[in-house]
Amino acid sequence: MNNKISLFPQGTTVNSHHHLVIGGQDVTELADKYGTPLYLFDELTIRNRCREFKAEFGKRYANTVVAYASKAFLHKALLHVLREEELWLDVVSGGELFLAETAGFPLQNVYFHGNNKSADELEYALKCHVGRVVVDGMDELHALANLAQSQGITQEILLRVTPGVDPHTHSHIITGAVGSKFGFSLADAREAITYAMTLPCLKLKGIHFHIGSLIYEAEAYLEALDVVLELVSKMQGVNSFSLLELNIGGGFAVPYTSHDQNVEVSYYAEALFPHLMQKCASLHLELPKLTIEPGRSLIAQAGVALYRVGYIKDAEGPVRYVMVDGGMADNIRPSLYDARYEAVLANRMNEADSEKVTIAGRFCESGDKLINNIYLPPVAGGDLLAVPVCGAYCLPLASNYNATVKAPIVWLSSGNEQLIRRRETYQDLTLCDLI
Amino acid sequence: MNNKISLFPQGTTVNSHHHLVIGGQDVTELADKYGTPLYLFDELTIRNRCREFKAEFGKRYANTVVAYASKAFLHKALLHVLREEELWLDVVSGGELFLAETAGFPLQNVYFHGNNKSADELEYALKCHVGRVVVDGMDELHALANLAQSQGITQEILLRVTPGVDPHTHSHIITGAVGSKFGFSLADAREAITYAMTLPCLKLKGIHFHIGSLIYEAEAYLEALDVVLELVSKMQGVNSFSLLELNIGGGFAVPYTSHDQNVEVSYYAEALFPHLMQKCASLHLELPKLTIEPGRSLIAQAGVALYRVGYIKDAEGPVRYVMVDGGMADNIRPSLYDARYEAVLANRMNEADSEKVTIAGRFCESGDKLINNIYLPPVAGGDLLAVPVCGAYCLPLASNYNATVKAPIVWLSSGNEQLIRRRETYQDLTLCDLI
Repeated sequence: MNNKISLFPQGTTVNSHHHLVIGGQDVTELADKYGTPLYLFDELTIRNRCREFKAEFGKRYANTVVAYASKAFLHKALLHVLREEELWLDVVSGGELFLAETAGFPLQNVYFHGNNKSADELEYALKCHVGRVVVDGMDELHALANLAQSQGITQEILLRVTPGVDPHTHSHIITGAVGSKFGFSLADAREAITYAMTLPCLKLKGIHFHIGSLIYEAEAYLEALDVVLELVSKMQGVNSFSLLELNIGGGFAVPYTSHDQNVEVSYYAEALFPHLMQKCASLHLELPKLTIEPGRSLIAQAGVALYRVGYIKDAEGPVRYVMVDGGMADNIRPSLYDARYEAVLANRMNEADSEKVTIAGRFCESGDKLINNIYLPPVAGGDLLAVPVCGAYCLPLASNYNATVKAPIVWLSSGNEQLIRRRETYQDLTLCDLI
Repeated sequence: MNNKISLFPQGTTVNSHHHLVIGGQDVTELADKYGTPLYLFDELTIRNRCREFKAEFGKRYANTVVAYASKAFLHKALLHVLREEELWLDVVSGGELFLAETAGFPLQNVYFHGNNKSADELEYALKCHVGRVVVDGMDELHALANLAQSQGITQEILLRVTPGVDPHTHSHIITGAVGSKFGFSLADAREAITYAMTLPCLKLKGIHFHIGSLIYEAEAYLEALDVVLELVSKMQGVNSFSLLELNIGGGFAVPYTSHDQNVEVSYYAEALFPHLMQKCASLHLELPKLTIEPGRSLIAQAGVALYRVGYIKDAEGPVRYVMVDGGMADNIRPSLYDARYEAVLANRMNEADSEKVTIAGRFCESGDKLINNIYLPPVAGGDLLAVPVCGAYCLPLASNYNATVKAPIVWLSSGNEQLIRRRETYQDLTLCDLI
């Protein structure tokens, strides 16, 4: 049991009723009060992860920026924490920018990413004076230059480069390999740098790359660093180009189950900096400001999903299905990426895992299984299932499949609980309907 | 080009401006007026499909009911048509039941399905006097019996049985194979029938099965029919059981591309009825009322997605990416099921398909590609891409990934257009947020 608890938010314990306690709150009470499915976020875990990233990278190289990749999960409550912890923010759409703006996040600390930003979104970003637009291709470079010129704005930019490195992860989430839809190829990047340096309304600060997600080994980052720094070295001085900033993206892994390796933040930092420094030295490059963009690795552990167990069914196979009141509409990752999760019975934490079951969702689709073949104590209807590491890419991908309503969010902070998003209602399902 | 047009709604043509015309409307004008991404539904196609299912099954066996499986797509505009066409309706949640109720759909013509219906949902269904509850397992049978008794209601039910047949389709959408989370195994079904017949508040009318989705060959239906009718034959007379109704589910295939086989409704009807009649005769069973539950096959062709082309990028590989303003948030089927689509340039229908491109979405994920390696005329930014066969399982699975807003729906009917769902706004993204 203890090795599962380490997957939950920091400080998670079990009380004398054998109930799971997260952020000082008995989760069975939260489930009774707010209903299920319910998502919890623990603020302390988020703050500690922010600080860990800043400390581990910052102590090795002071000129480091940590930017949170908001596509992993975004909410005003989180934005307030990120602002207080002095992180930067990645946004990938006008909608994410809107959420940052309305939360009062300092927009000069925002990177605006995306492979197909619309003219409206670029205009919005310029109007907001976002810190950096990360330009993804030649078409966008032209569009942004025209827009900035017509508005009399000088915009700082990075160019996203595809280093052509394969980080050995799920094919859906490799982003920096040859043939990716993202970024400039190395050949195009040379042309883009040369051209961008001639544009008075765009100020090219440096290069961005992102190699993928759930990367357990630093090797792929080092390979990509080499490729990009060699490109930079060749371009050094062309139209006065020099690399002031290098953004190496995110993709840092987190353990989803007790079988997954827990890669420490320090591991990445330790591997990256000597390599970066040595490579820059050997190429006679000044050390650039470094940006990292953790998304999942900053938020995943802070989030927990709670489900109520409904029916239990022994099917042929044999398979014992434990059916819960959520599934692929609130967490599509098992269906979409074959993602693997753990779970505990939050109301009976003292009992041993003795029974192999499959956690099935409530949605009318056979693929709607949250966890195949997991061991739990003997489960009964009414039990409370807690799934750790649900902070990233669950709620942002949530749907109203089967006309179900989206789950509420409770924010846990300093021993307090706060409902920061209410459960949708059936009426909400027709919010935009005009007949 | 013509073989692609046959995938679009019935009556789709091209006008003298070489623009695609659906339901009598120039889609380039609709896209200009309502913006993109935009979903269109053509009412005539829906009505014709309703009538085709009713006619092809009804003329071979008058005692047939056609029930639309609303999980494929649900909206009040559709419910009005289904009611007028005298179809029944499948719902799988309280939310779908709510939509049917508020649209004034006759609830005595509703089947209520689902593997993990909650107590609240069962209570709601009983209160609404839905036509049939399709009971999925023993736990539910007990729960429903208790609830009906406590409310003094007699509820008509079917039992869902897992026939253990493999229909050779995508593993996510096989639903009737051994080990499925759905339904009673054959052994449990015998016990359930015996028990259900003793319950005064539940009236067991018959059996339901559903073998999966996108089933091109009738063979799997025939196998399942045999299995279920043999079970029925063994149970005939037990506690006075007899099969009054047989619901064989849906799963009828539709072509998504010109390479897919177009299986006519008549093919399924022609294969099923002689087999059903012969098998019932050989087992000395009365012919039951038959229900079929088309979802996708009724609605898919009626729906079209329109996207505006943004940037175009030649990546290494080589791959020419054509990027559009939608993607996995409005249509996750390519990522989730490796679904394959066709597309046309709706504003240049006269030009030949000469260029191999990959249609990439706007979302920050490499897996966000709508269509790999499709031939189109030379594409330019600003072109309008129309994707046919988007009526089923696109919008119901839509998310707000990357904080994007969900697309509007225009309903095309008798030469008129009507915006039946407006585009979400950035403000709508925080509708349920309490801070």
